[in-house]
Amino acid sequence: MIFDKKNAGAGDGRVGVGGAVFGGQRLVLIAGPCTVESRDQMLEIACAVKEAGASMLRGGAFKPRSSPYAFQGLCEKGLEILAEARERTGLPVVTEVLEAAHLPAVAAIADMLQIGSRNMHNSVLLRAAGACGKPVLLKRGMSATIEEFLLAAEYILDAGCRQVVLCERGIRTFETATRFTLDLSAVPLLKERSWLPVIVDPSHGTGRASLVPAMSRAAVACGADGVMMEVHAHPGQALCDGDQSETPEMFGRVVGELRAVAAAVGRTV
Amino acid sequence: MIFDKKNAGAGDGRVGVGGAVFGGQRLVLIAGPCTVESRDQMLEIACAVKEAGASMLRGGAFKPRSSPYAFQGLCEKGLEILAEARERTGLPVVTEVLEAAHLPAVAAIADMLQIGSRNMHNSVLLRAAGACGKPVLLKRGMSATIEEFLLAAEYILDAGCRQVVLCERGIRTFETATRFTLDLSAVPLLKERSWLPVIVDPSHGTGRASLVPAMSRAAVACGADGVMMEVHAHPGQALCDGDQSETPEMFGRVVGELRAVAAAVGRTV
Amino acid sequence: MIFDKKNAGAGDGRVGVGGAVFGGQRLVLIAGPCTVESRDQMLEIACAVKEAGASMLRGGAFKPRSSPYAFQGLCEKGLEILAEARERTGLPVVTEVLEAAHLPAVAAIADMLQIGSRNMHNSVLLRAAGACGKPVLLKRGMSATIEEFLLAAEYILDAGCRQVVLCERGIRTFETATRFTLDLSAVPLLKERSWLPVIVDPSHGTGRASLVPAMSRAAVACGADGVMMEVHAHPGQALCDGDQSETPEMFGRVVGELRAVAAAVGRTV
Amino acid sequence: MIFDKKNAGAGDGRVGVGGAVFGGQRLVLIAGPCTVESRDQMLEIACAVKEAGASMLRGGAFKPRSSPYAFQGLCEKGLEILAEARERTGLPVVTEVLEAAHLPAVAAIADMLQIGSRNMHNSVLLRAAGACGKPVLLKRGMSATIEEFLLAAEYILDAGCRQVVLCERGIRTFETATRFTLDLSAVPLLKERSWLPVIVDPSHGTGRASLVPAMSRAAVACGADGVMMEVHAHPGQALCDGDQSETPEMFGRVVGELRAVAAAVGRTV
Repeated sequence: MIFDKKNAGAGDGRVGVGGAVFGGQRLVLIAGPCTVESRDQMLEIACAVKEAGASMLRGGAFKPRSSPYAFQGLCEKGLEILAEARERTGLPVVTEVLEAAHLPAVAAIADMLQIGSRNMHNSVLLRAAGACGKPVLLKRGMSATIEEFLLAAEYILDAGCRQVVLCERGIRTFETATRFTLDLSAVPLLKERSWLPVIVDPSHGTGRASLVPAMSRAAVACGADGVMMEVHAHPGQALCDGDQSETPEMFGRVVGELRAVAAAVGRTV
Repeated sequence: MIFDKKNAGAGDGRVGVGGAVFGGQRLVLIAGPCTVESRDQMLEIACAVKEAGASMLRGGAFKPRSSPYAFQGLCEKGLEILAEARERTGLPVVTEVLEAAHLPAVAAIADMLQIGSRNMHNSVLLRAAGACGKPVLLKRGMSATIEEFLLAAEYILDAGCRQVVLCERGIRTFETATRFTLDLSAVPLLKERSWLPVIVDPSHGTGRASLVPAMSRAAVACGADGVMMEVHAHPGQALCDGDQSETPEMFGRVVGELRAVAAAVGRTV
Repeated sequence: MIFDKKNAGAGDGRVGVGGAVFGGQRLVLIAGPCTVESRDQMLEIACAVKEAGASMLRGGAFKPRSSPYAFQGLCEKGLEILAEARERTGLPVVTEVLEAAHLPAVAAIADMLQIGSRNMHNSVLLRAAGACGKPVLLKRGMSATIEEFLLAAEYILDAGCRQVVLCERGIRTFETATRFTLDLSAVPLLKERSWLPVIVDPSHGTGRASLVPAMSRAAVACGADGVMMEVHAHPGQALCDGDQSETPEMFGRVVGELRAVAAAVGRTV
Repeated sequence: MIFDKKNAGAGDGRVGVGGAVFGGQRLVLIAGPCTVESRDQMLEIACAVKEAGASMLRGGAFKPRSSPYAFQGLCEKGLEILAEARERTGLPVVTEVLEAAHLPAVAAIADMLQIGSRNMHNSVLLRAAGACGKPVLLKRGMSATIEEFLLAAEYILDAGCRQVVLCERGIRTFETATRFTLDLSAVPLLKERSWLPVIVDPSHGTGRASLVPAMSRAAVACGADGVMMEVHAHPGQALCDGDQSETPEMFGRVVGELRAVAAAVGRTV
C-alpha cells in the first residue's frame, strides 16, 4: 500500500497548504464555524481566530445533513465568502466537498478539500478528489476501523494525490454522554502504520465545547500534527453544532495551552 | 416526514417491482451472487434460484470495496449479464448503484436500484436515485441509528420517489463471531414508525452461511416483508463473500422453511 | 471445554426444572414481573400467566440496580412470596442470585437460579452457583462476546453443574431506539458450538413492550428453546421496567402466536 | 449523590495512599506486573519501577479470567510477595479483590483495593469494599456509561468510604486494532461531574505496549491525576498480558516524557 510507513518516500510525510505544513515541527491549528452562515459571521470569526493563533480556516459551504429538511449550507455563495475570509486573513481554507460534481467549484477556491465522515466509504468521491490536484483532508468514518480508514486514504493516494492528511473525529459507541467517542489511540496507531500526517477534531469527537480544551491538549500530547476546532462568535446562535463550538476567546486560551503541551513533546504552535 | 406511518396515504405501503410486491401478503425472496463474475456464473445461479423459489434476482455489477485494489465488479458488462439473467428467468433484477453518474446506465437495465450501506449517508446519491423513476432498495448504514435510516429514506421520498424499501443488514458492534450484528428489532420498530416495506439481509448481517437459514426464519417471524440472500453455485470459489453464500440447494431448503414460518404469521412465500 | 457440542454426552442437552424441560421439543415460556413488589401483585400475575400458558415463573427478590438508592427488592420476603406463587400455580420458579452468601437462602426456595447480565463475569458467583446443586440460568453479559459467554458457562459446568441454560438478553450498541440490541444470531451460533439449551429475553433485549411479541416469534423461529418475558398486571405502576412489561392479556396473545411459529419449526408450546 | 462536584466537601478531592496522593499537584504513577508470578519476578520489577520513578506498585494476586482453566493467580501467596515488595521499595501497594470473602485477607496487606472492570456492576462487592476502611480504586466497566460508572462509585461512597479513585481503562467498541478503545474524554467529563480523582490505565485500554507512552502523555495532558501501567521485566515471558507490558526501561522513558507534559499542565511527577 502507498500509505505504508515503509513507502514514506512516496510522500515526505509533510503536506503543505499555503503557509501551513502538516507533519512538520509546527502544529496546524484549523479553526472556524461549522457552517458559513453569512459574510459577516464568517469574516468576524476568521479575523478573531487569526488573531488568536489559527493557522488555517474551516467553514462548511456544502453541508451533509441527516435530514433533507435541515439547512444544507450556502453552497457557491459560501465558497465566495470563504475566499474573502482567506483574502482578509491570509489563512488558507479547507472546506468539505460532498460530490464529484462539485469538485471544480470547490477546488477553484479551497486550498484543501475535506472529505467528511459520512463519505469516507464513498470510493467514487475519494478517487475524484485524489485526481483534482488539491491536498485532501480525510475524516475517519464514524464506524470505520483503522484498517478501513487507511484503505480509504489509499483510494486518494492511488488516484495520484500524495497530499493526504488523516483526521480522527470520534467513533460510534454505546456511550451517550458524549456525541461520539474520540479514539485518540488512533493517532499513534496510524503513525505506526503510515507516513500520513494525522490531526484530531475534538469538537465533533466529543460534541461538548467544555471538553474540547482538554481533548485538544491530549491530541497534541499523543502526537497529532494538528487540531481542528469549531469556533463561533456566538455559539448559542449557531445554525449548526453550537453545543460543540468554542468562542474565539476560549480558542485563544486553548492555543496558549497547546503551546505549552507542544513544547513538552518537542513541537511548536 | 413523508415516511411517517400517519402519511401512509403518501404511498400505499406496497412497492411493486415486476411481479414481486414488497409489503403485500406474499414475501419477496431476493437471491443471487454477491457479484456478477461471468455470464455462465450468473445464469447458472439465476436459473437455480428461480427453480428454488426466488421472486427476484440480485447481483453486483459495480462493487463498493474497502481496498482500491480489490475487484470492483464487471460494471457495464455486469449489467448486460443481469439483463440476460432476467430475460432467461423472468425475474426482476436489483443491483447496486454507487454514484449519480452511473444512474442512467443502471436504471436502463435494473428493475430496482440498491443503495448500499456505505452510501446510506450519501445524500447526493439518495436524491439522484429518488429522482430517476425507479424503485429503490435502501440498506441501513452499518452504524446508522433507526432515526438516521428513516431520514435517509426521506431524502429519496422527498426527491419524488414513493417506491422505497428498507433493508436491515447488520450493524457494527463489539461482537466478532459474526461479521455484523443483525438487528432484527429494527423490523418491528421501522414498521411502528413508517409505512415503508422492510426486508432483511441475513447474509451480510451475519457473514456466516450456516446462520442464514435460522436468521431468515427469524426475519419472517418478526414481520419482514422479504429476505435478501447471497447464493452462489460454488461458494468456495466466489470472488467475494463466499463465506456468507448459500448453495442453491441450501437456498431451496430455506424457501421451504420460510413457507412454514410465513404461514404461521399469516403470510405466503 | 465441557460446553463443546462434541461433549454433548456430558449433559444430554436437556435441563429439567419441575415440569419444564429446556431443550426438549416443547418450548419453555417463563413469565412474571421484573420485581416481586408485594404478595398481591405477585400472586395476581402468577395466576394470570399460568392461565395464559406460562410454563415457569420469574420474579426478582434481590435486584441489581445501577444506583444504590434505587429499590433493591424485597429480599427474603420476596423469596417467600415466590414460594407461595409456586404453590398456588404449580409452576417452577427462577429468581436471580446476586452473591454467593445468598445462595443457601435462594437455593432453598428457587427451582432454578438466575445469574444476571451484570454478574456474568463474576467467576466467584459462577463457581458457587455451579456447586449448589440447582439448575442455573445464565444471562449474557451486556458486552460479552459469544466466546466469553460460553466460558462463563464453563465456570458453572466445571463446578459440577450440568444443568445450565443460556439466555441472550441484548447487547450494548450505539443504537438508542431500543434499550439494548437483541442479538438473535447468538441463538444458532451458540447451538453450533455447544449442547447447552438457549433461551431469549426480548423484554430486556428491546426495553419496549410493543416489540416483545415480534421478537419472541423471531426467537422461536431461529431455534430458541424458550422465551423469558416480563409481565405485569399494571405496567404503568411497575416499580421497575414497566416500559418493557406486557400485560397478561398481551402475554396470552403472544403465547398463541408462538404456538403457530413453534409448529412451523417442529416445536410445541 | 455524594460523588457530585457540589458535594466536594464530602471528600476533599484528595485520596492519600501511603506517600502517594491522588488528586494533588503531583501525579501518581502506578506500575507493576499484571500478575504476581513469583517472588523473584515481583521483587525485580518492584525495584526497577521504584528506581524509574513509580509512586505505587500494582500486581494481581487474585486474577479474574474469562476461562476457568486460565491461571487464576497465586492468591494468598501473591499477597505475601506484594507485602515484601512494599517493604523492599517503600512503595504502597494496590491489588484487586474479587469477592467480599477475600476482603479481610486482601485488606490486611494492600494499601488500596482495586475493583476491576468485570466487577464494576457487582454491588455486593462495592458495598463490602466501601465498608472495610481502605481506599478503593474503581475501574470502569468495559461497557459502562459514565453515569453507571459514577453510580458504582456511589455504592462505595454510600458504604462509608470517601477514599475512592476512578480509573478509565477502555471500553468495548467495534475497533479491533486495539484491545479496547481508551475513552480519554471520560477524564474531563468525570471531573466536571464529580470531585473524585481520576486516573487512566493505557495498558488495558490499548492492549499494545507500543501505544502506552503516547496514551500516557495524552492522559496527563487532559487532566488525569495519575497513570497505571503494566511493567514486566520480560514481557515476552509474562504469564498474562505480555503484549501490553512495558519493560522497566520503557517505563523510565515514559516517566521522563510525563514529567515534561505534567509541567505543561501545571502538575509534577
